Order: sequence, then C-alpha cells, then structure tokens
Amino acid sequence: MFIGAQVSLYPMTSQFVEVITAGLDALTPYKDDLRIETDDMSTLMVGAPEPLLDAIRDLFAASAKRPEHVTMHVTLSRGCPGEPDDPSCRCEVLERAQDETLAERQALAAQAVENAVVTGVGIDVQFSLYVMGSGNHMDEIYGCIDFLKSSGTFLESKNFCTRLRGDAGAVFETLRQAFLRFGPAEGHVTIDLTASANSPSLA
Amino acid sequence: MFIGAQVSLYPMTSQFVEVITAGLDALTPYKDDLRIETDDMSTLMVGAPEPLLDAIRDLFAASAKRPEHVTMHVTLSRGCPGEPDDPSCRCEVLERAQDETLAERQALAAQAVENAVVTGVGIDVQFSLYVMGSGNHMDEIYGCIDFLKSSGTFLESKNFCTRLRGDAGAVFETLRQAFLRFGPAEGHVTIDLTASANSPSLA
Repeated sequence: MFIGAQVSLYPMTSQFVEVITAGLDALTPYKDDLRIETDDMSTLMVGAPEPLLDAIRDLFAASAKRPEHVTMHVTLSRGCPGEPDDPSCRCEVLERAQDETLAERQALAAQAVENAVVTGVGIDVQFSLYVMGSGNHMDEIYGCIDFLKSSGTFLESKNFCTRLRGDAGAVFETLRQAFLRFGPAEGHVTIDLTASANSPSLA
Repeated sequence: MFIGAQVSLYPMTSQFVEVITAGLDALTPYKDDLRIETDDMSTLMVGAPEPLLDAIRDLFAASAKRPEHVTMHVTLSRGCPGEPDDPSCRCEVLERAQDETLAERQALAAQAVENAVVTGVGIDVQFSLYVMGSGNHMDEIYGCIDFLKSSGTFLESKNFCTRLRGDAGAVFETLRQAFLRFGPAEGHVTIDLTASANSPSLA
C-alpha cells in the first residue's frame, strides 16, 4: 500500500512566501515519519495516515492562526495501483477494516472524531471522497455521508462535495476517518479537499 | 447526466478580493449557458463541457494576465449518481464516445488539443483523473496518460497526479479531453486540478 498527499498552501497576502515558509516549519516534527518533498506547485508527503493527517492539520492550523485569509488544497491517496508498495505507509486501521461491517466502521469513525485533539483554530473544509474500481462505490459514499452528518463537523452538502466546519482537530480527524474507513480497505481511495480560514466572506 | 465544477481562485496578494472580482467578470459571456453560483469557498458552474471548460479557462487566463502569483483549484465532475439529470449538460462528445475504441478516443483528443485556441497566457497545471465504479479503471487512466504524454502540454508525472505546462488554451483543452474521452461515457468521472501562474518559485 502507498499512502500520501500532495499539499498546497495558499495565503491571500502579498507576504505569502513568509506564511508558506512558516507553515512548512510546522512539519518539522513529522520529518522522521514522513517523506516530504516540495516543488513549485505542491508538497508531497508519503507515510502512514496517523502522522500524515496530523502533519497536514498542523501545517494548516499554524497558518490559520495568523490573521490573513489562507486556504489549502490537498489530494489524499491510498492504494493507487500505479504506486509501489511502501512499508512506511502500513496502517492498522485499514488492516482491521477488512473484517468490519459498514456500521462498525461508522461507529469507530464517530468515536475517533469525539476523541480528536482540540487545536483552538476554527476552519472550513469542503471535500470529495472518491472510491475507485468497485461496482458499489456509491454505497460506501452514502455510508460515509451518514457518518459525516453525525460527526459534529458537518455543515452542508454541496454539489460534488461536502462542507465541514469546526476545530481543525475534529475536522482533520473527520477527514482521516472518511479516508480510511470507507471504500475497500485494499482499494484505491482518494480525497480532494480544500480548507479555508479567515475568509472575509464570512466576516 | 449532470456535469459541473466547483472552482476557487486564490490570488497570492493582499488585493485578492479585487483580483477574484475581476476574474469573475470573465464569466459574464457564459452566464446564459452555465448555472453559476458563488459562496464563500467556491463557485459552482453547471453545464455542458464546451462552455464549462471555456469559462474556467477564461477565468484563470484573465487572472494570470496580471502580475501577481495566482492559483486555482477545480473539482470537475460528470455522471455523479447522486446528482439529477440536467438537459443543459448534454454533450455530443460523450454520446459518441460510447461507440469509440480507446485508440480512437486518444486520436480525437490529440486533434482537439492541436486545434485549441491560443490565449497567449502560459500556465502550469497538475491534475488527477478519477474513474469510479468500473473494474478496469486503471486501463482508462493509463490510456489517458498515453494521450497526455503526446499532447504537447505534458510536463511530468508526479505521485498521484500529472503536470501540464503551456498556453492556457492548449492546457484546458487537454483537461477537457481527459475529462470527456477517458472512463466510461456514461460513468462517474472526476478531475481534481490545480492551476498556477506567475509563481516566484519558477522565476
């Protein structure tokens, strides 16, 4: 299994280089657990979902603590058949999920969000979950939407995506659970997500 | 069939509201052909792929003509089983594609990119194509990658996505062809794309 993300941070300020550089500092504690490579469009992070989503959360929360409007785009992927197997991506949640029913996975996901860390940073997210190579992909999507609606972070359904709102801790835990517990455990699943903080449209 | 996009423009300048508003003006010619609704996170555009991709191209090209670094994120979707059928989204390319082989579709896609309009605006894009609900989704992905490599806009393969570079006309035509000609014509296909212009990382 290969698990990772392409992550891009977009600060809506003329000092954007400074904000991006400060945000990337938040990744330092994760450098032993993740492979991190930055180019001109995005930062690749490869590794297990525990450090991976924690790192993405901390990157965004650090930037969102500043006053400027900032957004982030993340493409999360697990099980892409075109990527090599990588032992650093091993994930017990996925291994156990193979023997769990949809209802069991929904309950475990809800529990994880309840136990999420609190960062004190409020954020907005919209995201799409994609389940590839399976005839019943919409069953898993609808099962995930049921979980989202009772997660405490659900804001609204939109065309093509779902809006979440809440503390960055609960929101990124919701995303991790959606990513890991829905769609076949050994299958190819991706999430396309946009996070936003300090938007003047909400002022 | 329901076809549309969620589109977000991110200008990396403290005058970001002005740049976004000017960019949205570029959508005016498309208001008869597309349903366009903007909220605090993105602009929904619903309609046929011809005006849809033209509108997204013109929105980004108008913003990229300015000196500031600007990026855009787009979630494109066709055939999502959760969306209603919409006659305004009818697409002859998709209807014909049902009877075309992969090789025929690759040739038609290449020809469309050759005939693309020239905007005079150079841009970078990275994107992922997702084909849902089909057992052989990777055959279509690899078929699409073959088309991309000979499209004239291919820059490089990255983990989880493909980089394109070129005139906004050719690049967005490449994206439209990838979106329409690969994956089942009646199936659920999405593209997650990020566009970038005037990045100081490339200076």
